[in-house]
Parts: sequence; C-alpha cells; structure tokens
Amino acid sequence: LDQQLLAQTQTRLDNKTKPLGSLGRLEEFACRLVAITGQEQPDLSRKAIFTFAADHGVTEEGVSLYPREVTAQMVFNFLRGGAGVNVLARHAGAEVRVVDVGVDHDFENCPGLVHRKVARGTRNFCTGPAMTTDETAAALLVGIDLAAQCKAEGIGLVGTGEMGIGNTTPSSAIIAAIGGFEVAQVTHRGTGIADQALANKIKVIERGLALHRPDPAKPLEVLAAVGGLEIAAIAGLVLGCAAERIPVIVDGFISTAGALIASELHPQVRDYLFAAHQSVEVGHRFMLERTGLRPILDLDLRLGEGTGAALAMPLIEAGARILAEMATFEQAGVTGH
Amino acid sequence: LDQQLLAQTQTRLDNKTKPLGSLGRLEEFACRLVAITGQEQPDLSRKAIFTFAADHGVTEEGVSLYPREVTAQMVFNFLRGGAGVNVLARHAGAEVRVVDVGVDHDFENCPGLVHRKVARGTRNFCTGPAMTTDETAAALLVGIDLAAQCKAEGIGLVGTGEMGIGNTTPSSAIIAAIGGFEVAQVTHRGTGIADQALANKIKVIERGLALHRPDPAKPLEVLAAVGGLEIAAIAGLVLGCAAERIPVIVDGFISTAGALIASELHPQVRDYLFAAHQSVEVGHRFMLERTGLRPILDLDLRLGEGTGAALAMPLIEAGARILAEMATFEQAGVTGH
Repeated sequence: LDQQLLAQTQTRLDNKTKPLGSLGRLEEFACRLVAITGQEQPDLSRKAIFTFAADHGVTEEGVSLYPREVTAQMVFNFLRGGAGVNVLARHAGAEVRVVDVGVDHDFENCPGLVHRKVARGTRNFCTGPAMTTDETAAALLVGIDLAAQCKAEGIGLVGTGEMGIGNTTPSSAIIAAIGGFEVAQVTHRGTGIADQALANKIKVIERGLALHRPDPAKPLEVLAAVGGLEIAAIAGLVLGCAAERIPVIVDGFISTAGALIASELHPQVRDYLFAAHQSVEVGHRFMLERTGLRPILDLDLRLGEGTGAALAMPLIEAGARILAEMATFEQAGVTGH
Repeated sequence: LDQQLLAQTQTRLDNKTKPLGSLGRLEEFACRLVAITGQEQPDLSRKAIFTFAADHGVTEEGVSLYPREVTAQMVFNFLRGGAGVNVLARHAGAEVRVVDVGVDHDFENCPGLVHRKVARGTRNFCTGPAMTTDETAAALLVGIDLAAQCKAEGIGLVGTGEMGIGNTTPSSAIIAAIGGFEVAQVTHRGTGIADQALANKIKVIERGLALHRPDPAKPLEVLAAVGGLEIAAIAGLVLGCAAERIPVIVDGFISTAGALIASELHPQVRDYLFAAHQSVEVGHRFMLERTGLRPILDLDLRLGEGTGAALAMPLIEAGARILAEMATFEQAGVTGH
C-alpha cells in the first residue's frame, strides 16, 4: 500500500473534532480503504458477499454432523433469502451472490445462482488428492473472474463466504500443513460434533496429510491435496480483489483458509484484507496469526456462509463515513490543542 | 428477566437453519431482547442515542488536554451533525438527542437541543462535593424523564453517550470509590494527556476521595461527591429504560460509570443493558467486571459521545432480525440432525 496515502489520510482524520486516534480501528479502516482503492473518498455504496458452495469427498469418513445433501438444500435456502447470510447481508445493505463451484447436485432453473461448477465435489483426500491441478486452477479462476466482474460493476466492498458440509476438515488440514501444526491443535467441532467424532476427524486429517505430505512452501499443492473447491474459489476471489484494488472482508475459519492460500502465494494481498471476526473454531487464530490479520469482531460465531463478513461490513463502512462526514476543528469552531 | 421467555426464544433460534448456537452472541442478543421487551418480535425500528453534556469543576485542576469551552463548542457541533456520534448514529439509523444537563454556557435559540440544565457544571470535588443532593436527584430525574418519553414515542432501542471536558476524572473516581481500587489502577489518559498530567490527575482524584470518603455502599453518595451531572443523567436513563423495558446500549468509560451507579442501586438493571465496547481507558474493564457486562466490540475506541453505542446498535438489531427473518429447517426443507 501507498505509505504516503496512508499518512495523508491519517492527517485528515487528525483534523476531525476528536482527540487524536480516539476512533481507534475505524481510523485504521479509513486509512486502509483510501490506500487500497486509491480513492480520496472510497465509495462503498455497492457491496457484495460471495457464498461459494461445494461438496467434499471426505464426508465419507463421517467428519460432519450433517449429511452431504444439506449443501444443496442450503443453496436453495440462500436463493430464497432465508439463510443467516441473507438476513445479515440485507441488514448490511449488501447483495448475496451464491456460486455453485462444486456442489454434488444438478441445479436447473435456479434463478440467481451463479453456475460455475468445476466438479461435483472433491474426492476423499484419505484415498487420493482432493482435486486435480486443473480443478484447482479452474476453481481459483472462478474467484478471479468474479473479482474482475465486481470491478466492472463498481462494487466497492466484497465479503467472502461459503457453504459445504464437511469443509472445516479441509480447512484444518490446510492450516496444519502450511503452519506445521499438530492436527489436534487446529481441529475443532465444526457444526458441533461430539468428542468421539472429533477424535475421528483428527485421525482422518492425519491420514490425509500422511498420504500426500504436501510441501508447506507450495500452497497450491496443499490446496489440491487436501483443500476444497470453495476454498480455492475464495483464494481466487482474494487474489482478484487485491489485483483490482477492492477491499475484501474475509469471513471465518473456512474463508480464512482460502485467504491463507492467497497470502502464502502473494504476501501483499494481506494489505487488502479485513478479518471479519474471531471464530470459535480453534484453528482460526493460527490462520489469523500467520496472515497477520486482527479480527474485527469476536461474537462466538461459527456459522460461516459469510455471516461474519456481513456483520463487519458496517464497521468498515463506518471508517469511510467518519472520513467523509465528520467536521474538522476549524469547520466546527472547536478549540484544538 | 423472564427465564421462560429466554428459553422459548432459544428454542425458536434452535429451529433456524444453522448449527445449534452457531450465531453466538447474536442469539444471546435475540433472547435478551425478547425477555427485556416482552415482545415476541422486538421492534427496534426507532432508535435514539442520548448525548448528555455537562461541565466539571475539577477541570480547574488541569486534568484535561482541552479547555472547558470545548464542551459547549462540541454541543454546537452535535447540533449541526458534524461530530463522530452524529456520523455513526446516521449510519446506524438512530437519532441523536443532545441534552444540556449541565454545560457552563447559556444556550439560546438552539433548535434541537434538549434544555434540561441542572447547574452550570459541577463544583471542583477537591474543595467540596461535586453536586448537592438536590442537583444529583435532579440530574437523575432528567434521565428517568427521557426514558419515559422514549416509551411514549415507541423508541425500541436506546444508546447512552456524553460530552464533558474532564469527565474521565469523575468516572475514574467513581469506580475507585465503589470498587475499592487504587486510583492509579483505574485512571488513564482521557483525551490523551502525557505522563506528568496523568500523575497529576491521579493525585487530584486521590485528594477528592480523601476529602469526601464516600461510603462505597451508597452509590448516590459517591455520585454526589465526585460524579458529574451527565453521569447522573445516564444513571437515570438506565434506571428509567429498565423500568420501561427498553433495552439500553451503554457506550464507553463515562457511560459505564453512570450504568455502574444504576446497577449498584438496582442490580436487576444489568439485565436490560448491553455494553457497547471495551474502551481504551484502563478503568473500564473494572466497571464491566463489576456490572457483569461483556463488551460487544473492541475497536480501541476512546471518544465517547455515544459513538460506541452507535456502532454496536446494528449488531443488537442483527439478533432481532435473525429471529424474525431466518427460515427454519422445516420451512427450508433442510435435513436437521
């Protein structure tokens, strides 16, 4: 990011009628928004949250509380506007774009669905790589394409989100592989599995990593071996938005797995990211530490879909509004110091 | 609060299309809103933030970075809509009501100002009590009256706020007196004073407390001895809103001093309160611990005015919207577990 733009924006904020720095992180948001977009007054009036849906072969191993069909069922729920992300995106004034990047279901006559299916889910990473190199690249490209489309449409703020029964499993596998952590350290209950199922989930991830031994320095190798199509699409969206200078709010655990892949590939993308919240999933903080992102909210969320991104959007926007609308000491006739 | 209503609301949430409990604190907000208001679907469409302004005699002791005139200057800034709280309240869809409860300035022809001046500021608590018993009661009544007016107008969510040069000093004095803390433990930089001024501020509070020795078990005695008119009005607003079953978002350090007085008088008011955020002021966490409130946001804020309350409002509302708008497993045809 342009250090001069950051400093100039801080000076503008310092002239506003408030003690220096007293709006805390809102000031950070304002400065970063200006530096990311290159706009003196970032226009965040159009906002979109991308909810990428995909299935996971590893659900064969009994890693989730819910059956695999729920992924497709939830896609219909998103399209009807009844899911958590729909409610919270409406509240934030953002649009939800539901992308089928890999659901094991044929969606026909689904108005509103973005059809970008790469495969009908990943393969079980306990028996082979989750994705081929081509599938991985194709899913990344879905995200990159959608970012370019956002730029063309004038969308000023993007949120990530996902739906995929079983997808905390590849997310834990990714942070374990990249960060070199014990699987048990970064693996948690997902939708709410009990102790025995958690122990099984940890063993499943250990088996997958032992089978593939992906090189931690090669994030795309990790992604293909144990990742997911929606995770790849999120990584692509993050890379694409950074390239297009669009700020991105990264949702929770699974979204941050995607952002982690992107930031391992290109560390500079971190400058374009905002971490929506601290998830209940224990592996999340290891991802946040590695990407250097400080979460905005801590509300004990663990739903995903983009719900945390939707909740954080108004806070990022608040930074832009402070910059645009607050009076200076001079304008207000207030004695500075 | 009605435990049955809390439990019934949790059951409604448990039928929504999400893993149990996965919306974390939003679920807590939803349950509490129903129990506070007694409404199955709380109506938060009308929201108001009260910014109580007052001056402080203790500013004679050089406790603040800004001169006393700034209190009145900021009142004009609020009325013109240029202050931080105006910007953030507009963003949250809330109205700002600016109340002169004790500013050392004659406000004439000030459209929009709520004229409820009790005195032209407090007295210097180093030389005598900050307020008389009558002044304390009058300022409390201002808040109680305004809560009753909110009820009459159908305001569904109230936020507290304040402006008063020097008012972190009485706030630190209050938590030191009530909690039995060392003054140095709960006193911080306010608008941004340097080390020497902070050392002086601590000594000033120590002198005031040594002079009055208020009984920690008598919150109104503490309030009169070392408090402030805006702090008393906030205590009254909190008491009044609880009595009227209106949920209240308590802003930062100074607002929480008011809420602390109210909750020491009537511990049940805590059930009606939401703590907007964790302030940078070090004494704030002691207040939050004592009132048992868990802050919603942690954004390094230390501006006051009601800015934190404005930022937290959409999050409280999000709880209500989840309850109203999310589809159930049955409605969405999603397989539960």
